[in-house]
Amino acid sequence: MLGARGGWQALRRCSSLPRAVRLRVREALGARQPVDEVKVQGWVRSVRSQKEVLFLHINDGSSLESLQVVADPSLENRDLTFGSAVEVQGKLVKSPHKRQNMELKAESIRVVGPCDTWSFPLKMKERHPLEYVRQFPHLRCRNNTLGSLLRIRSEATAAIHSFFQDNGYVHIHTPIITSNDCEGAGELFHIETSNEARESAEKTHFFNVPAFLTVSGQLHLEVMAGAFTHVFTFGPTFRAENSQSRRHLAEFYMVEAELSFIESLQDVVQVMEDLLKTATSTVLSKCPHDVELFHKYIRPAQKDRLEQMLKNKFVTISYNEAVEILKQASQTFTFKPEWGCDLQTEHEKYLVKHCGDVPVFVINYPYDLKPFYMRDNEDGPQHTVAAVDLLVPGIGELCGGSLREERLPFLKSRLQRLGLADAYQWYLDLRKFGSVPHGGFGMGFERYLQYILGVDNIKDVIPFPRFSHSCLL
Amino acid sequence: MLGARGGWQALRRCSSLPRAVRLRVREALGARQPVDEVKVQGWVRSVRSQKEVLFLHINDGSSLESLQVVADPSLENRDLTFGSAVEVQGKLVKSPHKRQNMELKAESIRVVGPCDTWSFPLKMKERHPLEYVRQFPHLRCRNNTLGSLLRIRSEATAAIHSFFQDNGYVHIHTPIITSNDCEGAGELFHIETSNEARESAEKTHFFNVPAFLTVSGQLHLEVMAGAFTHVFTFGPTFRAENSQSRRHLAEFYMVEAELSFIESLQDVVQVMEDLLKTATSTVLSKCPHDVELFHKYIRPAQKDRLEQMLKNKFVTISYNEAVEILKQASQTFTFKPEWGCDLQTEHEKYLVKHCGDVPVFVINYPYDLKPFYMRDNEDGPQHTVAAVDLLVPGIGELCGGSLREERLPFLKSRLQRLGLADAYQWYLDLRKFGSVPHGGFGMGFERYLQYILGVDNIKDVIPFPRFSHSCLL
Repeated sequence: MLGARGGWQALRRCSSLPRAVRLRVREALGARQPVDEVKVQGWVRSVRSQKEVLFLHINDGSSLESLQVVADPSLENRDLTFGSAVEVQGKLVKSPHKRQNMELKAESIRVVGPCDTWSFPLKMKERHPLEYVRQFPHLRCRNNTLGSLLRIRSEATAAIHSFFQDNGYVHIHTPIITSNDCEGAGELFHIETSNEARESAEKTHFFNVPAFLTVSGQLHLEVMAGAFTHVFTFGPTFRAENSQSRRHLAEFYMVEAELSFIESLQDVVQVMEDLLKTATSTVLSKCPHDVELFHKYIRPAQKDRLEQMLKNKFVTISYNEAVEILKQASQTFTFKPEWGCDLQTEHEKYLVKHCGDVPVFVINYPYDLKPFYMRDNEDGPQHTVAAVDLLVPGIGELCGGSLREERLPFLKSRLQRLGLADAYQWYLDLRKFGSVPHGGFGMGFERYLQYILGVDNIKDVIPFPRFSHSCLL
Repeated sequence: MLGARGGWQALRRCSSLPRAVRLRVREALGARQPVDEVKVQGWVRSVRSQKEVLFLHINDGSSLESLQVVADPSLENRDLTFGSAVEVQGKLVKSPHKRQNMELKAESIRVVGPCDTWSFPLKMKERHPLEYVRQFPHLRCRNNTLGSLLRIRSEATAAIHSFFQDNGYVHIHTPIITSNDCEGAGELFHIETSNEARESAEKTHFFNVPAFLTVSGQLHLEVMAGAFTHVFTFGPTFRAENSQSRRHLAEFYMVEAELSFIESLQDVVQVMEDLLKTATSTVLSKCPHDVELFHKYIRPAQKDRLEQMLKNKFVTISYNEAVEILKQASQTFTFKPEWGCDLQTEHEKYLVKHCGDVPVFVINYPYDLKPFYMRDNEDGPQHTVAAVDLLVPGIGELCGGSLREERLPFLKSRLQRLGLADAYQWYLDLRKFGSVPHGGFGMGFERYLQYILGVDNIKDVIPFPRFSHSCLL
């Protein structure tokens, strides 16, 4: 990941010892030739003391791999333990071992920060289960698996931004505090100031109106899609659902895009597929070792799945077809498949399997199932809207999108029937002034990470786990 | 901005009319040679009907410049007005006019979405003041100035991400909902669910503890700086200060970085200067016309200021020196400058002027002025901490940073004196396990945009203005 854009100054003169070149572990490991005086800083991942030689492994977060340090046993001291922070100076030389390119022959080792190994919850060379490290939100990042996750998360974020920028999208910071609840997307968090929290009744609101944490930036992106043909946002969204599920978080990240002047739902579907494939192949090429760790220890089958996904065109079926497939299934479902009902996770999983364990777009959902802003297909006898969900193996729904109702009369009458025409006057307004066919989609970023890495519990793909909702740092 | 990375498919076949190539306005304007059959979509920015020719200008948000369309008057129709959305097909040819490279000779013009010009608050060819367009949060982006702002904001966001990635930083999504208030950074927003909002007393909290909207990701970044030597975050932060100031927002974006194994405050200062210069020169080169609009109509002096800033090394003075300079000033201040008191905006502005109207780092602030996590300089007789603020012309404070107290005994005794040792047990813990010298800084993103563009009111550099706190979309 680091230095992938070729930019960072590999060689930085160290001010205290003018001859020593400061290198990050990743730089040292990738060096093409020996360097006489180098300084490497990091945390000790292993100490092995032999009669004639002392071996250390130093990690500084720049890569999964640690740098092997070879030293004279006289350099050992009692603070040089697993977890301590050290600064090692010496010669970077070709390693005689096959598994590593370079190693550092130490001339001096300084313990910058000792580690109280007795109370440190991580132990040397132990492969701690994810459930164990989840208990230590402030120390979890020092574990190999979480280190890899965080590097992958960082690269995936960059890859998603790049995908949109390379395709001419304008990035928009949609509001986090908002008064629109995107109609039934889920339970909301309310916002108040300390003063309001202290008084109970007859509140005056800080914003004059009740304010919530956003559940989606879609409606705001639609505003922008009236001036820019391609916009996207990638930020936090919130649901106050009190569930302890492995699939849901109160705070999660969502990638959302909106496109103007499109011709059909297929235009939206194509961008979803392109995004998923481009971001995934970028992550695989930027963090091969980090991804490999997950595909080796966490979910071995995931590697093949991703390769299949990248090679093949995604399948598209209609909701009507999906219901037919489910009705003809030999499997018995907890929820009986029926036209007009939502697809449940069990249904989604079956459909993905049925289609060959590849991502599946399901399009054209029942009109009455979907929110007011989705475009009426004006079909019959089964009335649908131009909506799409992307189902992926192991996860179920990963993305959702639709054409938006750009026609004022359709939108107005639907909002009036729902009693929402006043609240959404500004949204109706957009349809009066140069309204064009448009559509978009959202993708849950954590679900995406779960998908590519094969991680079962969503709390293991975020930087700070919030188990039992209690562990807020 | 668009296509800067060379990636996007310039030529997209249009499905309805197989011969026509769909081009964005920016692509059409930048074309090297004529194209026979093109299709351009966008919103009409001007209509000028002459006896023998009809001129249109079409904008699609891909650039500030619009594409000139030349058509036979027979193609005019009554829906073809300012603000309407159109699709024009024809030949892209070299323009005979000096000020534009290409123009489109229309063969057909289709009005995709008419505009109710009577009620549309924006008028053709009028340069609406920023205060006027601020009244229309859902239509403001269709105004030239705000269009430019949003493209610049998007590019500045990308430039900041690139700066950190190119320098090997890992991007971390620090929590938005948190139980830590970063000690007095400002008034907090509280979070509750709908159920809690309905009940008044004896609440059980959703997260078991009171939860706030984050005021800073710093402490979380410090967690990460115990595993990665370079981390950054760039996300929304919140202050519930009920002010109608031109300088403050309830919701704003902050760039924050944290570095481990640093040797002095100078290491932090250097990154601040590099970030500011790199991001600014990237924005200037990616959006020259958009920036020019601001430097021409909004704040003519700003262009020279930026050029000065990019050319010269920033000035560094100590807080002690700053107070001496202020005491010796001939100017009378509302707040009398005194060692131990915060620098006020009037002081900051004076210091910047005094140093030659360039960015000024002020370092080593009084110990008692600053929060618990800043590193004790152990100096005397005037006791200071290793803090830094960056003051810039026209704005005052743009960035703030410090070394963090990495020494357990110092931190513990300070937290104990403040009665915070229990609440920050996890933060103290970090100092037990391989603690290293580290430091970091934060930069308000909106202030940064105000600075480079010379925009007076902070509400004019955000996508959706929140004036009087009431206009939440």
